[in-house]
Amino acid sequence: MMRVPSRFCMAFTPEQLAGALRWRYATKSFQAGARIPSATWSALEDALVQSPSSYGLQPWKFLVIEDPSLRTTLKPHSWGQSQITDCSHLVVFLARRRIEEADLDRLIQATAEARGLNPEQLAPYRGMMANDLIQGPRSAVIDRWASNQVYIALGTFLTAAALLSVDTCPIEGFSPADYDRILNLETSLYRSCVVCAAGYRAPEDRYAALAKVRYSAADLIETR
Amino acid sequence: MMRVPSRFCMAFTPEQLAGALRWRYATKSFQAGARIPSATWSALEDALVQSPSSYGLQPWKFLVIEDPSLRTTLKPHSWGQSQITDCSHLVVFLARRRIEEADLDRLIQATAEARGLNPEQLAPYRGMMANDLIQGPRSAVIDRWASNQVYIALGTFLTAAALLSVDTCPIEGFSPADYDRILNLETSLYRSCVVCAAGYRAPEDRYAALAKVRYSAADLIETR
Repeated sequence: MMRVPSRFCMAFTPEQLAGALRWRYATKSFQAGARIPSATWSALEDALVQSPSSYGLQPWKFLVIEDPSLRTTLKPHSWGQSQITDCSHLVVFLARRRIEEADLDRLIQATAEARGLNPEQLAPYRGMMANDLIQGPRSAVIDRWASNQVYIALGTFLTAAALLSVDTCPIEGFSPADYDRILNLETSLYRSCVVCAAGYRAPEDRYAALAKVRYSAADLIETR
Repeated sequence: MMRVPSRFCMAFTPEQLAGALRWRYATKSFQAGARIPSATWSALEDALVQSPSSYGLQPWKFLVIEDPSLRTTLKPHSWGQSQITDCSHLVVFLARRRIEEADLDRLIQATAEARGLNPEQLAPYRGMMANDLIQGPRSAVIDRWASNQVYIALGTFLTAAALLSVDTCPIEGFSPADYDRILNLETSLYRSCVVCAAGYRAPEDRYAALAKVRYSAADLIETR
């Protein structure tokens, strides 16, 4: 059993969080060759691993594309964006294509191991997932459901990166079909869902200096 | 023009981030009556407002449900989960149903104002959005696209809350149709997409002490 304090022993203040969120922007030009240190990158990989998902099912994988020639191949299928080749770490977020009994078994097995339980004790939990995701109405939109979970991981990753002073650019402007072909995912249980470049902004990226555009809290948030 | 340092002047370490992500769990029992202080809640509202979205379009709104009787009405349409009534702040994340020319105009206007530009200078940016979201292939899946953006905001919110020592429970187990009816959203341009309860874990919530179950980085992350 893991001990968890009822308050997180934090050193984070609202001001720090606000500062990180304002420092962040969608980086257009990365400083080519500026590499995220390995300890920092490990923390960001950990943020991906720890990301929340519905039922904790983690219907995802994350491909980190290092090979420069592979990046060059992907670039024209990414609206030619320079971030693909110039960033430090290029992450392709993959979503599970289907949820099958085997996915539930895998999670139940991992849960039983982590918590010292017999998998049979988790039968109600397994049944709830099966009734919702495999037999239930969500099974008809499972592709969409899996994408939603992947976008939680994306949000987690973007925020975590900003906190650690790492720049990012989330990228929807790419061809999933071409990515799947190039990355040999066509017969995989996973498909490319969204992309994120991470690294350090180039000093000449003029987008860094532009005012962030956000609607006001009064426009976006309504209390009832 | 906002001045942005090329490194975020951070006080965040990888260890702090890892600690917050591990402290977080999907809270099943909130301490009824334990209220998030207003300064902390303001920071979390700000995290919602600052959340990234594709093109910065912010195709969302956030309803904060305070009214106890309204929460009681929503509870049976939320699988009867106690979090709906016991949490401090209940947020219903709304997604834009459609993206129309008016949405682009609104963003262009806000961008021009924030950056001291003439809206006409932003015509290429507007055209790119229109070609993708209104005339392009994404228009056929705009509902799904908007949901994805909302889930970025959810990921941002969950992470931000953990950093500030606020517990959360993301909730997909609710009836969007009933929420839309009860919240008078049926004729609105927005629809209920996902729900999140925020507050403080009850001391007796046994889920807080259970080991978190995550697949290993070796299973989830692949470098190419």
